[in-house]
Amino acid sequence: MYPEAIDIVQVTPTQLTKAKIVSQLRLHEEALRNQRRSRRSKMEWTPIPQSEHAANTVNPIRKIADAVSVAPNPEKPVIKLHLGDPSLSGRLPPSRVAVEALHESINSHRHDGYGPAVGELAAREAVAQRFTHPAAPITAEDVILASGCSHALQMAIEGIANPGDNILIPKPGFPLYSTLCKPHGIEDRGYMLDMKNGGLINLEHLETLIDERTRALIVNNPGNPTGVVFPKHHLEEILELASRYHLVVIADEVYGDLTYDGAVFYPLATLSPKVPIISCDGIAKRWMVPGWRMGWLIVHDRFEVLSEVRKGLVALSQKIVGPCSLVQGALPKILADTPEEYFEHNRLIISKNASIVSKVLKGLAGVYCLNPHGAMYMMISIDKNMYGDDIHFASNLIKEESVFCLPGSAFSASGWIRLVITQSEEITTEAALRIREFCERRQNTFVEITESSDEGCDISNSECD
Amino acid sequence: MYPEAIDIVQVTPTQLTKAKIVSQLRLHEEALRNQRRSRRSKMEWTPIPQSEHAANTVNPIRKIADAVSVAPNPEKPVIKLHLGDPSLSGRLPPSRVAVEALHESINSHRHDGYGPAVGELAAREAVAQRFTHPAAPITAEDVILASGCSHALQMAIEGIANPGDNILIPKPGFPLYSTLCKPHGIEDRGYMLDMKNGGLINLEHLETLIDERTRALIVNNPGNPTGVVFPKHHLEEILELASRYHLVVIADEVYGDLTYDGAVFYPLATLSPKVPIISCDGIAKRWMVPGWRMGWLIVHDRFEVLSEVRKGLVALSQKIVGPCSLVQGALPKILADTPEEYFEHNRLIISKNASIVSKVLKGLAGVYCLNPHGAMYMMISIDKNMYGDDIHFASNLIKEESVFCLPGSAFSASGWIRLVITQSEEITTEAALRIREFCERRQNTFVEITESSDEGCDISNSECD
Repeated sequence: MYPEAIDIVQVTPTQLTKAKIVSQLRLHEEALRNQRRSRRSKMEWTPIPQSEHAANTVNPIRKIADAVSVAPNPEKPVIKLHLGDPSLSGRLPPSRVAVEALHESINSHRHDGYGPAVGELAAREAVAQRFTHPAAPITAEDVILASGCSHALQMAIEGIANPGDNILIPKPGFPLYSTLCKPHGIEDRGYMLDMKNGGLINLEHLETLIDERTRALIVNNPGNPTGVVFPKHHLEEILELASRYHLVVIADEVYGDLTYDGAVFYPLATLSPKVPIISCDGIAKRWMVPGWRMGWLIVHDRFEVLSEVRKGLVALSQKIVGPCSLVQGALPKILADTPEEYFEHNRLIISKNASIVSKVLKGLAGVYCLNPHGAMYMMISIDKNMYGDDIHFASNLIKEESVFCLPGSAFSASGWIRLVITQSEEITTEAALRIREFCERRQNTFVEITESSDEGCDISNSECD
Repeated sequence: MYPEAIDIVQVTPTQLTKAKIVSQLRLHEEALRNQRRSRRSKMEWTPIPQSEHAANTVNPIRKIADAVSVAPNPEKPVIKLHLGDPSLSGRLPPSRVAVEALHESINSHRHDGYGPAVGELAAREAVAQRFTHPAAPITAEDVILASGCSHALQMAIEGIANPGDNILIPKPGFPLYSTLCKPHGIEDRGYMLDMKNGGLINLEHLETLIDERTRALIVNNPGNPTGVVFPKHHLEEILELASRYHLVVIADEVYGDLTYDGAVFYPLATLSPKVPIISCDGIAKRWMVPGWRMGWLIVHDRFEVLSEVRKGLVALSQKIVGPCSLVQGALPKILADTPEEYFEHNRLIISKNASIVSKVLKGLAGVYCLNPHGAMYMMISIDKNMYGDDIHFASNLIKEESVFCLPGSAFSASGWIRLVITQSEEITTEAALRIREFCERRQNTFVEITESSDEGCDISNSECD
């Protein structure tokens, strides 16, 4: 069949009718296909590679967690301060309102079926109602529900950037941003947070990273892992820069007003009448139910430059058809009826823990605490010469003191460790004391604790104090 | 700065020390960056395009649904047979066991936090326990939980294929397969189902589509939209072909043993000791809670050719960190304790409805029912010359009879319509009668209904009868 099919290339159209040519071309194609198939059927079963997309989906935390997976000291009870999951300690349970809302949602049997992929209208209206602001008014049309804030971030990133584009991400920062960018060939360009100066963004450095292929700037406030809350003037500087360079901002605001010690959270969208902002949020970290997987994104688009992107986000939401409908059914009540005391109680616990760690570690040579004012984390810088790198520090701390924390390397912050400060005061105190002992064992002489010590846990940036 | 930076290109290395060259190269790079930035800052805010990924995420059902969005006849109550959501009719509520399990999961407060991204161990064990089979044994290690079966399919497709690869999908078939392939540049090659011959796969046609870049074959059994249940010998033929060409099979088995009238569901993995199979499933369509978004994939990998793909699937699961933890907490009880009568009751309702539609439409000229034996759908072929194309048929049916169904075009089956058969017998009868009247109005003369009619609703494939 094959030679015959080749032949037709050598004859002129006039020698053949059109029908014959078409028929012979078909034979030719069929022969080629048969050849390809026959090659395939002669293959053996060999290991099948994963896709490049999957191979490039890397969560650095997993690698780091593996690196510090050592056995704790059997003589000391384990204290886990490594997972950013407020539900683990038992000190920050969900509110009664949230639990009731969920039972009601189940019993109503109005939320067993599919809702719209962007989320049920009532749930989106509830989000709009709670987060609309005179300076940044929104309606349900601006809200897309997601399977957790992670999924909201995924849609925002996938909806706006192409392979070869870049997105600016904080460094140190939440590693998921890179995990979501890389499989799509989107470059994750890290801008520096000035960790020894209150953890604000080094805007000069950020500016050097911008080019024509910069598609978005991710701003995480309050910050993970830093616990830093950006003051208003800093947010305004960020927006000025975004405005000057026409950068869309993806605001990861999942810690929102979980702030304390006087720090105030300003939703980024309320500070600019111009810059288009996609705000990502959820009930994971303020309503303390990360497992429920309920998040959302809000499109703040003052000048209607995001109309196309909005369509893209809606299309992307269709891939997994929205978050769990039962939680969607509960969302209006959760957002409207959770009492302010619930949040105040949670803030107090975290604030007290931050202050405990700070006090206990005060004056310890080679140890510097970046005092947090929001979220549920505390970053502690560790002098490498005295204590080894952060991965050794963290793994030895488990081995000797049974205290689990994450090395800063998991967040592009080598030389730091991150503590989660959601445990009880007793446990947090015990953990801090063990860390102190651990450090002191590594010093030849104890460092005198004096009020005038330059080293220590006072934050150098007065704004955040 | 810029001219100076250019200059260094013209001097020879010997004229400059290495340090100077490096320093001047830096200046050069900085100048270029400044130039790029300055160009950027001179731009105006202009409409920002969505990513190509988002633009290529297309759900054809939405377009088709728009095309048939007309007002129903105000004089007839609306009957909705277009959405594959068993919860809508009220006839197929979730089982009491499932509802109890969920209340218990909430009250336990053991499922408020993050579980592992692949799913809680107990939930994965429950899946393994329910679906392990002597011919295809599995453990929790082979299970990854997903946010619905859609998400399981998404991970399977994204985990195995690269841009330029192709995946074979059924035609007619569930449009999500294409929606998930296309944004990644994965070609969705449709193989024909032989709709006039029992809806089995045309394996000859399928074979012609295979080439070196074919990465997987998606087999949907029982089928959406067809309602067809593949008999054992047909599944064996499919596996023989997959084995011959070394094709990984993605088995969409979300309708599982929701079969009736004597049809038996064989999980694909139990019929082959060889072919690697990724089976996708969930509680949406047999436990009747699609909104709860609980699905899973099971990796059946007899010869360990999927070890890499498995790693990729685990990595992909980290993007949205698992399905709702509360439903994960409820899953063991749901899978273990839902009584067999629950499923039997559901099967009976669907089976009765299929038979009602079949009987009412019997003998209608130009109308042919592909009698279903599983899932919750029924496909009806409509003679274009008598009734117009499927989109006109569906939209006129709404306008005149207030009966909603989906045109087959939404499933690559133009000339057909899909009915969802999960309503009460009364409503289904009423809908079928209205469809009959609708058709009869379009005929000049009524067609005589005789037992010997060749046209009609008898399925031509005796295997499925």
